[in-house]
Amino acid sequence: MTKITVAKGDGIGPEIMDATLRILKAAGAQLDIDEIDVGEKVYLAGNTAGISKEAWETIRRNKIFLKAPITTPQGGGYKSLNVTTRKTLGLFANVRPCKSLYPYISTKHPEMDVVIVRENEEDLYAGIEHQQTDEVVQCLKLISRPGCEKIITYAFEYAKKFGRKKVTCFTKDNIMKQTDGLFHKVFDEIAAKYPEIENEHWIVDIGAAKLADTPEVFDVIVMPNLYGDILSDVAAQITGSVGLAGSSNIGHDHAMFEAIHGSAPRRAGQNMANPSGLLQGAILMLQHIGQSDIAAKVQNAWLKTMEDGIHTYDVYDEKVSTKKVGTKEFADA
Amino acid sequence: MTKITVAKGDGIGPEIMDATLRILKAAGAQLDIDEIDVGEKVYLAGNTAGISKEAWETIRRNKIFLKAPITTPQGGGYKSLNVTTRKTLGLFANVRPCKSLYPYISTKHPEMDVVIVRENEEDLYAGIEHQQTDEVVQCLKLISRPGCEKIITYAFEYAKKFGRKKVTCFTKDNIMKQTDGLFHKVFDEIAAKYPEIENEHWIVDIGAAKLADTPEVFDVIVMPNLYGDILSDVAAQITGSVGLAGSSNIGHDHAMFEAIHGSAPRRAGQNMANPSGLLQGAILMLQHIGQSDIAAKVQNAWLKTMEDGIHTYDVYDEKVSTKKVGTKEFADA
Ligand SMILES: CC(C)[C@H](C(=O)O)[C@@H](O)C(=O)O
Ligand SMILES: CC(C)[C@H](C(=O)O)[C@@H](O)C(=O)O
Repeated sequence: MTKITVAKGDGIGPEIMDATLRILKAAGAQLDIDEIDVGEKVYLAGNTAGISKEAWETIRRNKIFLKAPITTPQGGGYKSLNVTTRKTLGLFANVRPCKSLYPYISTKHPEMDVVIVRENEEDLYAGIEHQQTDEVVQCLKLISRPGCEKIITYAFEYAKKFGRKKVTCFTKDNIMKQTDGLFHKVFDEIAAKYPEIENEHWIVDIGAAKLADTPEVFDVIVMPNLYGDILSDVAAQITGSVGLAGSSNIGHDHAMFEAIHGSAPRRAGQNMANPSGLLQGAILMLQHIGQSDIAAKVQNAWLKTMEDGIHTYDVYDEKVSTKKVGTKEFADA
Repeated sequence: MTKITVAKGDGIGPEIMDATLRILKAAGAQLDIDEIDVGEKVYLAGNTAGISKEAWETIRRNKIFLKAPITTPQGGGYKSLNVTTRKTLGLFANVRPCKSLYPYISTKHPEMDVVIVRENEEDLYAGIEHQQTDEVVQCLKLISRPGCEKIITYAFEYAKKFGRKKVTCFTKDNIMKQTDGLFHKVFDEIAAKYPEIENEHWIVDIGAAKLADTPEVFDVIVMPNLYGDILSDVAAQITGSVGLAGSSNIGHDHAMFEAIHGSAPRRAGQNMANPSGLLQGAILMLQHIGQSDIAAKVQNAWLKTMEDGIHTYDVYDEKVSTKKVGTKEFADA
């Protein structure tokens, strides 16, 4: 039994979390669940952080956190709880596997199998922003050597552990010579310690272009936070849908698992949403807590369902799908 | 006769510029050319700006500048001449049309016809970067209201002039509430003045994903500098190749025209490079200086050559190409 914290989130969150937990239970996952309330309800009750002290205590105590998407209300000084959680718990690595399921899911990129390792605490996400004059605002992009060392070492260790052959680094260090320059420099230093793993660097503009066009040339890609945010959505989407990708947020002591997509309030409560992203997050969680056999069982059941053409509306395609189903029916299958 | 400044640049620059100028001449373009030296030679002769005072004077005097790609040497405090030129001449709008040439050029996105309007002076390109402590570096992202107003107005005026139906804005204002928030706010203000043009906003992560996956849903997209840098490479590449796209850099008094790709030093001097990107830049220039009939003539000749399957190596594809040619032969055709 592993004690974990679960947050059902907003929008389609509760539906996809219910579906995910039902599947985990059916597969025999050994989980003892503490549920917490976070997100919209909490924000709108006047807590601008979107989370209570008690909820934080639960998260800290259990160390493992499975989180559904959250809606941050516009305006009013609300902070993104996603970002706060990553920073508060020191979740420095955001890992997003993006693999094509061709021919079961339509994609223009049947060969792709990329893992984006995104730095998760620094960069423009440091949250240092202010009004300089009436007409000028600024935001600070912050990069530290320890931050670069942690994430780049993580990327190479990940490659080693999962038998990946190449780690690529994306930066814009022809323009940001000091900040992205530091990331690139630390990449070269750390790459030198892993002679058995191929390494390469691309300027992020042409790297992104290549990723969108021929993703099959990449394996593991490590990059600063904001590029990772944008390009993990690109990579996930071109496998078939952002709705299919999960991510792990890893720190020294804590870990959080989630879908990479948002809370899609317009689809909420309609039994339409695809639970696959959160389920993939849950599979990464099971691997992380040492229940790899259950993880494999869930992954196989999911693959089988996808292969059988039992698809939710977002990935439904006449050419490959056999049955259009809702969230619940997908989970049943 | 319009007097223009021409720089042949580095790497494949001289070859593609020669090809381009030959084509312009053959089409009867009325140009009086002042050639200047910029880039690697100048840098390595000890001028860290990569350009002489006299060259600046020529550029300023002629106002219209056709520029081949330039190589900025690594290290040694060299500044990117591309960026310096944009800022010095106040070239606030970087316009990059990305249109598929299907079925003549292989692409996974046959319907795409997107124009990226990229802010060209501010953002992380402001060049304000420094070392804060031994282990921490920072770069300033700067956004100003006048900067936003100029580029967003330009995007709507462009849409109006060329009969485009929709302008989309990409920002990450769920995280950068002040900087990207200002860009988004000004977008909404200016959009309200153009009720005949549809407008919409996407968070840049999922917007980029959509652009990479189904670019045909977009028309004109306006965005801050760095997103525009990355996503114009993505958009150009998925039409078939970054080698096919040109761009105009427009200011109140000056304008510069270029290919969007780099100087590709490894391909230099081999008569391999595709001059199409620079040629597209030159076509945008002819339109800008009122030689639209010649622009159309060049564009038609280029389309005919592409349609005939006469392709350089970078876009050569057995399925649609009939003849693999070098830079010179392509220009002849
Ligand atoms: C919701 C948002 C704050 C978040 C981010 O920007 O990191 C999301 O886009 C993600 O990628 O997890
Ligand atoms: C060469 C480089 C400085 C330039 C940029 O970053 O703007 C290029 O990538 C471009 O898009 O024109």
